[in-house]
Amino acid sequence: MIIVLKSGASDADVADVEGRIRAMGYTPHTIHGELRNVIGAIGDDRGKERLRSLASLECVESVTPILQPFKLASREVKRGNTQVRVGNVVVGGREIVVMAGPCSVESRFQVLDVAHRVKAAGARVLRGGAFKPRTSPYAFQGLEEEGLKLLAEARRETGLPVITEVMEPDKVDVVAEHSDILQIGARNVQNFSLLRRVGEAGKPVLLKRGMSTSIQEWLLSAEYVLAGGNPNVILCERGIRTFETATRFTLDLNAVPVLKKLTHLPVVVDPSHGTGHWEYVESMAMAAVAAGADGLLIEVHPKPEEALSDGPQSLKPDKFAALMGRVRKIALAVDRDL
Amino acid sequence: MIIVLKSGASDADVADVEGRIRAMGYTPHTIHGELRNVIGAIGDDRGKERLRSLASLECVESVTPILQPFKLASREVKRGNTQVRVGNVVVGGREIVVMAGPCSVESRFQVLDVAHRVKAAGARVLRGGAFKPRTSPYAFQGLEEEGLKLLAEARRETGLPVITEVMEPDKVDVVAEHSDILQIGARNVQNFSLLRRVGEAGKPVLLKRGMSTSIQEWLLSAEYVLAGGNPNVILCERGIRTFETATRFTLDLNAVPVLKKLTHLPVVVDPSHGTGHWEYVESMAMAAVAAGADGLLIEVHPKPEEALSDGPQSLKPDKFAALMGRVRKIALAVDRDL
Amino acid sequence: MIIVLKSGASDADVADVEGRIRAMGYTPHTIHGELRNVIGAIGDDRGKERLRSLASLECVESVTPILQPFKLASREVKRGNTQVRVGNVVVGGREIVVMAGPCSVESRFQVLDVAHRVKAAGARVLRGGAFKPRTSPYAFQGLEEEGLKLLAEARRETGLPVITEVMEPDKVDVVAEHSDILQIGARNVQNFSLLRRVGEAGKPVLLKRGMSTSIQEWLLSAEYVLAGGNPNVILCERGIRTFETATRFTLDLNAVPVLKKLTHLPVVVDPSHGTGHWEYVESMAMAAVAAGADGLLIEVHPKPEEALSDGPQSLKPDKFAALMGRVRKIALAVDRDL
Amino acid sequence: MIIVLKSGASDADVADVEGRIRAMGYTPHTIHGELRNVIGAIGDDRGKERLRSLASLECVESVTPILQPFKLASREVKRGNTQVRVGNVVVGGREIVVMAGPCSVESRFQVLDVAHRVKAAGARVLRGGAFKPRTSPYAFQGLEEEGLKLLAEARRETGLPVITEVMEPDKVDVVAEHSDILQIGARNVQNFSLLRRVGEAGKPVLLKRGMSTSIQEWLLSAEYVLAGGNPNVILCERGIRTFETATRFTLDLNAVPVLKKLTHLPVVVDPSHGTGHWEYVESMAMAAVAAGADGLLIEVHPKPEEALSDGPQSLKPDKFAALMGRVRKIALAVDRDL
Repeated sequence: MIIVLKSGASDADVADVEGRIRAMGYTPHTIHGELRNVIGAIGDDRGKERLRSLASLECVESVTPILQPFKLASREVKRGNTQVRVGNVVVGGREIVVMAGPCSVESRFQVLDVAHRVKAAGARVLRGGAFKPRTSPYAFQGLEEEGLKLLAEARRETGLPVITEVMEPDKVDVVAEHSDILQIGARNVQNFSLLRRVGEAGKPVLLKRGMSTSIQEWLLSAEYVLAGGNPNVILCERGIRTFETATRFTLDLNAVPVLKKLTHLPVVVDPSHGTGHWEYVESMAMAAVAAGADGLLIEVHPKPEEALSDGPQSLKPDKFAALMGRVRKIALAVDRDL
Repeated sequence: MIIVLKSGASDADVADVEGRIRAMGYTPHTIHGELRNVIGAIGDDRGKERLRSLASLECVESVTPILQPFKLASREVKRGNTQVRVGNVVVGGREIVVMAGPCSVESRFQVLDVAHRVKAAGARVLRGGAFKPRTSPYAFQGLEEEGLKLLAEARRETGLPVITEVMEPDKVDVVAEHSDILQIGARNVQNFSLLRRVGEAGKPVLLKRGMSTSIQEWLLSAEYVLAGGNPNVILCERGIRTFETATRFTLDLNAVPVLKKLTHLPVVVDPSHGTGHWEYVESMAMAAVAAGADGLLIEVHPKPEEALSDGPQSLKPDKFAALMGRVRKIALAVDRDL
Repeated sequence: MIIVLKSGASDADVADVEGRIRAMGYTPHTIHGELRNVIGAIGDDRGKERLRSLASLECVESVTPILQPFKLASREVKRGNTQVRVGNVVVGGREIVVMAGPCSVESRFQVLDVAHRVKAAGARVLRGGAFKPRTSPYAFQGLEEEGLKLLAEARRETGLPVITEVMEPDKVDVVAEHSDILQIGARNVQNFSLLRRVGEAGKPVLLKRGMSTSIQEWLLSAEYVLAGGNPNVILCERGIRTFETATRFTLDLNAVPVLKKLTHLPVVVDPSHGTGHWEYVESMAMAAVAAGADGLLIEVHPKPEEALSDGPQSLKPDKFAALMGRVRKIALAVDRDL
Repeated sequence: MIIVLKSGASDADVADVEGRIRAMGYTPHTIHGELRNVIGAIGDDRGKERLRSLASLECVESVTPILQPFKLASREVKRGNTQVRVGNVVVGGREIVVMAGPCSVESRFQVLDVAHRVKAAGARVLRGGAFKPRTSPYAFQGLEEEGLKLLAEARRETGLPVITEVMEPDKVDVVAEHSDILQIGARNVQNFSLLRRVGEAGKPVLLKRGMSTSIQEWLLSAEYVLAGGNPNVILCERGIRTFETATRFTLDLNAVPVLKKLTHLPVVVDPSHGTGHWEYVESMAMAAVAAGADGLLIEVHPKPEEALSDGPQSLKPDKFAALMGRVRKIALAVDRDL
């Protein structure tokens, strides 16, 4: 942590800050600059959060952290890539893992139909929402447990593992019973009670980035799950909120190489939510794999124009199959399989 | 809902879209423009969400809603201002209601000391965090139930009603037992399970805006609480996330007049979180009241430089008292009391 | 400047970076931390920009500046407030200076009518656009020199000094001839050729913040004008671009106290462009003055619904007069005059 | 244009608005909804800007445009792709065109050395800055005309056409004399005087997106150049400003498929400015081509750690050569050449 003093800070101010740093268990190291004094606080940084409160002193101009605040998620702690195994599927290995299916589970026919078709096109995991986080209380809220059972049936029929969202701590057990990967949605990325709870579950967790979550905050959310004892965390970029309205969100593919530098966890990308328009999904899916993503999360619906949620961003099965062909070429170009 | 067709859409396309609109229970009304055909879908709009899926048709260029999607929160449904009563305090009336206290409850002495001092300066509600949402799992997470009890003790001693945050559905009962206003934090503004649960609680709810929540989405979150049967919702602007880093967030005071136009619910402002620096809190508190806010939420700590959370944005009690004097002058200038 | 080395950087790396810092004329000071080595570069910082290139070394993790990069604009260089005199008007003194008038000069009648009415309501400066920066080449581009002459006529008739925008270096002379304050618009805040040119003009400059300009960058743009020899710079907050669409821009009033801390230059606020809706202008004008602004820039049009530009955000003269009454109360509450 | 009236608007209000629409030369078409009346204004829309002023009427809730406001840039006006020819290079054809070179021209040796090396690696155009837009007046401002001559010399030596930035109308002639493509930088994307001037120049124009310019505004800026008679416009995505600080800007690759849908103009991507860190340039260059970009703009410097500007984002020549090999594989995977 670097503490910058205001110009005009006295020697007594420097001594006071140094004393406070020592009292918190760190070693102060002061640089006397021409215009400012700067004090480095040396020591184990997990608790350095508290050092930030020094910013409230009148003589302090700013307090700036030097180290990334996450540990278990950091590539410095674990150099090699984490591979998350789900049945015979490995996320974070050589294969690009595509997870596809409808936004919401709407009916038995719908989910089974889509499941067979995305499998035929090469998807390795079936996605589908049973509990739906909806902005409006008047929108379709999902089939809930009935939806989970339909997903489990589709899993039995196709052999595809299932990923579905869990929205509250109390539902973790029932969702885990019927699925293979627990998805934490963008709106729950800082729902710390939920993060702690899935940290204790024995299932892999896919953690979506929040729409205004910095990469650093996102990795701290992953840290909650890892610190809970669950090493199987997959990160999913799904678009951030910016001023641009031509797309629903701004899918931030820069996050892919940034994460690959900072963390050992696998990274997948959701171009369906990221762009919000089916016409842009294929291009951004290809770009995601070229940028280094380990997988994709894609919405497929047999009749998007009748979907109960997110129809505008859903692909028809034949368009999804065409996408898979083009993404496969990119995968091969970056020495990956699909 | 306005559906814009692509240029080149055929008469058959128009007929197809009109048919789909009718099938969903709306009446289509088509305008034949020079370059585009535009179809209005007329009817009750609570379920109009589904109309958005028409955007996935090849012949459709865009689907644009015309009406605000919330109902119970709307000033069209209720013209007069909602007043939320908490003991002898009324939020949304003539009085500017100031809620003040420490970010986190840290000790019995701290909370009692602050409670007496903010009361002396004119605060009407005591704030304090017992369950703390912290970005890092290694940061202080709050005293939890012990903290609730200390808040309840401070309430008994001072007579000030208490506001504190609740973070998960399972804790609503215990938090409600020890406090008077349930605070939903920025990170939980779209935690729909929690919103539903506090909609059933008998206590007023203060709903903070999320850091990337649009005003429309925020009012839809309020709608969850209102639709659950709880009419006592207070909205709290606390800063949004933008590119500017000179402040921790960008406190969006524009939200105050926008909300006053759209909704009957009372609006308070949190300049402490909104700016993140104690030096800016007073100016923005004054501006908030001038903009039409019904109250303020302000962090006060006896020793900010030793605070376990949010020290940089906390005011010392004497600075808070000075702030109250200046805010009072603004309140009088806008024909309010403080 | 603080240079953080990567974990694993060798002693040779440290020595290499120290050598490069010395070669650029700074003194390195190395702190050996537990996980990282950190090197402070001590010395005069005007050229420290170049130190940033050290970030391209393999062994360097980040390079972070410690000092604000502007000098002449800084309150450290000049403690007292700058007062900009325009005729008998002083911007940055005790009086809140209101500059009002139409977005565009459209006709002789329009500008004279508005000039008399805003003067009667208490405005001290007449604003009006002759050269208009328009997003679309098909929109009304302003009356240009004819507009300047009409503004000058209104000045003669009313005695109000005139502020108008200049968009390119070649027009500075003609605009300066007919007006009293040269306005640099948001889209030209980093038009460095233009900044240099108005730095040489003998007229005060009002520099609007760009819609995505950080406060630090904005002050560096002011520095261009100051470094050109023109000390009379007024800063004008006019809204930044964020995800929120309920307002045209997000008027960032936080900038007012931040600027008051960092710089001695006067600060005015434009709530018309900042919100984009006439219904929100009064509230935000009041809030701006409460936050500490030295003045306001407000659009007034006799018939906003027929305006050739920015009608939605223009006030009718009677609404402007009412606004002035309410703003005056706020001014008095903060010990200012209006 | 769709005009939505407030609930409670009277028949007289409807008639008044219809009359105003007719007076402006459009045909009103009113839809009587259950809660709102909505009026469509039908007619040629180049001047529809003026209709927006109707939003200032008390009875009007909102005014929403239906059509994209640009014409010449639109794919509806020209279905096929525009190909911009520069010597024997075609931007917008089958080949991915890579433009590479130093941020700033710093010396004869530097620019010639880089020119030969980027040519050897497969670059088709040499980039280099002679006039530099710098945030700080104290930073290196470029070699100006001396820099232009060095670029021209490098062109003679290597045969590579040259792209360089022009910052003000008065310099268009001299820059055009020494270069082959006129670059308009991000900070000048709405410098309309400059856009008009390069619209009259006989040279191709590369128009960078501003850091907070929406795609629609960007295409309107291109429209200025096209309307000036210059059809040879290349669009360059270079990153937008968001809350994320892990990258210098957020390179918005979503813009690539959005632009490919809306416009016939070629699209290139600048991952150097977009990310601000050399370590992320290769991944994002690959992603850009996978997303459908027609070319890349990449900064290469022999000694980035000694660069006078933008060293952190510059690649060494050998890293650039490696990048070209990987980008080539992606190009082939999308049936393009490199």
